[in-house]
Amino acid sequence: MSVLGIDLGGTKAAIAMFSETGELIKKETAALDHRIGSAVAGLVCDMLKDFIGSESVDPVRAVGVSVPGISRSKSGTVWAPNIKGWEDYPLLKELQSVCGTVPVSIDSDRACYILGELWQGNAKGCKDAIYLSVGTGIGAGILINGSILRGSQDIAGCIGWMALDRPFKDKSISCGCFEYYASGEGIAKVARELLVSRSEYSGELRDKYPEKITAADVFKAYEQKDVVAVEVMKQCVEFWGMAVANLISLFNPEKIIFGGGVFGPGVQFISDIQQEANKWAQPISAKQVSMEESGTGGNAGVIGAAYLALQAINI
Amino acid sequence: MSVLGIDLGGTKAAIAMFSETGELIKKETAALDHRIGSAVAGLVCDMLKDFIGSESVDPVRAVGVSVPGISRSKSGTVWAPNIKGWEDYPLLKELQSVCGTVPVSIDSDRACYILGELWQGNAKGCKDAIYLSVGTGIGAGILINGSILRGSQDIAGCIGWMALDRPFKDKSISCGCFEYYASGEGIAKVARELLVSRSEYSGELRDKYPEKITAADVFKAYEQKDVVAVEVMKQCVEFWGMAVANLISLFNPEKIIFGGGVFGPGVQFISDIQQEANKWAQPISAKQVSMEESGTGGNAGVIGAAYLALQAINI
Repeated sequence: MSVLGIDLGGTKAAIAMFSETGELIKKETAALDHRIGSAVAGLVCDMLKDFIGSESVDPVRAVGVSVPGISRSKSGTVWAPNIKGWEDYPLLKELQSVCGTVPVSIDSDRACYILGELWQGNAKGCKDAIYLSVGTGIGAGILINGSILRGSQDIAGCIGWMALDRPFKDKSISCGCFEYYASGEGIAKVARELLVSRSEYSGELRDKYPEKITAADVFKAYEQKDVVAVEVMKQCVEFWGMAVANLISLFNPEKIIFGGGVFGPGVQFISDIQQEANKWAQPISAKQVSMEESGTGGNAGVIGAAYLALQAINI
Repeated sequence: MSVLGIDLGGTKAAIAMFSETGELIKKETAALDHRIGSAVAGLVCDMLKDFIGSESVDPVRAVGVSVPGISRSKSGTVWAPNIKGWEDYPLLKELQSVCGTVPVSIDSDRACYILGELWQGNAKGCKDAIYLSVGTGIGAGILINGSILRGSQDIAGCIGWMALDRPFKDKSISCGCFEYYASGEGIAKVARELLVSRSEYSGELRDKYPEKITAADVFKAYEQKDVVAVEVMKQCVEFWGMAVANLISLFNPEKIIFGGGVFGPGVQFISDIQQEANKWAQPISAKQVSMEESGTGGNAGVIGAAYLALQAINI
């Protein structure tokens, strides 16, 4: 028996086949190549056909899909802001037409990330754990007593919108306060704002036009102890620490796992984040929680999607 | 059949008998009168004996208890910061010795509040709802897909510790940032701080020594449009709105219910709070949530404790 996990991003789709016990059998990736709307679903259907129809020793028993947005469990439609035409796209129906009697489950990427860690990463054996995903945007996959927190309309875990810096500023209106300051895009943005205001600056980032600076540039400059990069990361650690503290006080989790493109290089700050969180969080909960980097090697999405599939047939 | 609910506070204990269908049969309240440690448990046991042994037509089938702190489900012990000697008090064992074969369940007050609203208040029929309790302190009872969020060590919902105002200030070290500014005690404290800095002030609060000002005084002065009271409440609405926004973005609830002594007079601000929350929260979730005052007439604790009892025998 095997299960398939599909991880849909804004620019590419990955599909992987796993045995029931979690061994990776094969994996493929395809670029979306600026496809929009039904063309994206068409690509995924083609990838699925290849895998389901392949002469594998193990027939596929279930399919799980991770989408970068909201999966509406009641209607089977999805909203993915980075895929044009997917405001309320009937993805479940499309995929079912290819999969026949093989059950298909869809969930948000943040939900799949924590499921991936639960199955094969650093949340193994946990009942209450949270995956904080920091990439271009920020989201949280939240496991409560062994189940994913979905909320009344499948929109739980939108931690990028966390209010952390009063008063409200219009600049965070489109992405949320926490994401504005502490996502990958946020790190770059804060660095650009600082550079523009410092005409005397002659550090590591001097040769970049402010508009072209990326989070990766800031991390590189940080390694050289660049003053602007140090200031940006110090503020970022404060925001990460406050957000993590709020997760601790509200959820009392066993573990918080840091993943996404920024963690990555951000893992060097995990102990600083924990120190900042300890100032703010409910003190008994703060003592009990452990913080770790992701244990799925950047594959939390595809592994979690496959585990979603496995859960659907194991219930 | 009847069930008993006991609501333990820092200064008094209430006990009430309900029919299975939720009708109040009788209720009594007793002051703790500065009792500490086992004397508090002794008082509760005496109240229980009276009710269980009374010639009621309906025998008591289960007992539920709401404690102001943490109920440790694995050990049956409780921590209640306002009851001296209850750091790790074996309350379950004590009560079981009086109740015999009648099952006893204990949970935190914040958990019981949302259960009370679920059974007889404004959360009837909800699966995902939150009770924000603002009194001397602040806590949140959180219902997820019909179940109470307890966390890995029964300390979930400690929203008084929410980080909302950077940088961290030592003054909030003992109670948490949100509680420091926006609890009943916080409202009084912020008013006192403002008054001390305004020698020219001649408003409603002028005859009170700053140390004696209470939240009730601030609400009264607010009715008279007192400048200090207006400023205090404006800031308070900002904090309430941010905290509520964070609940919306993380939990995507159907409903948020405002209760505790401060709501109370604070209910006049619910639409202002919703407006502030709408600035910060995940916008799709924000549109779907409704906000209401408590529908249990100040009895959420005792009703919720009774429902806790009922749930224990209905499972």
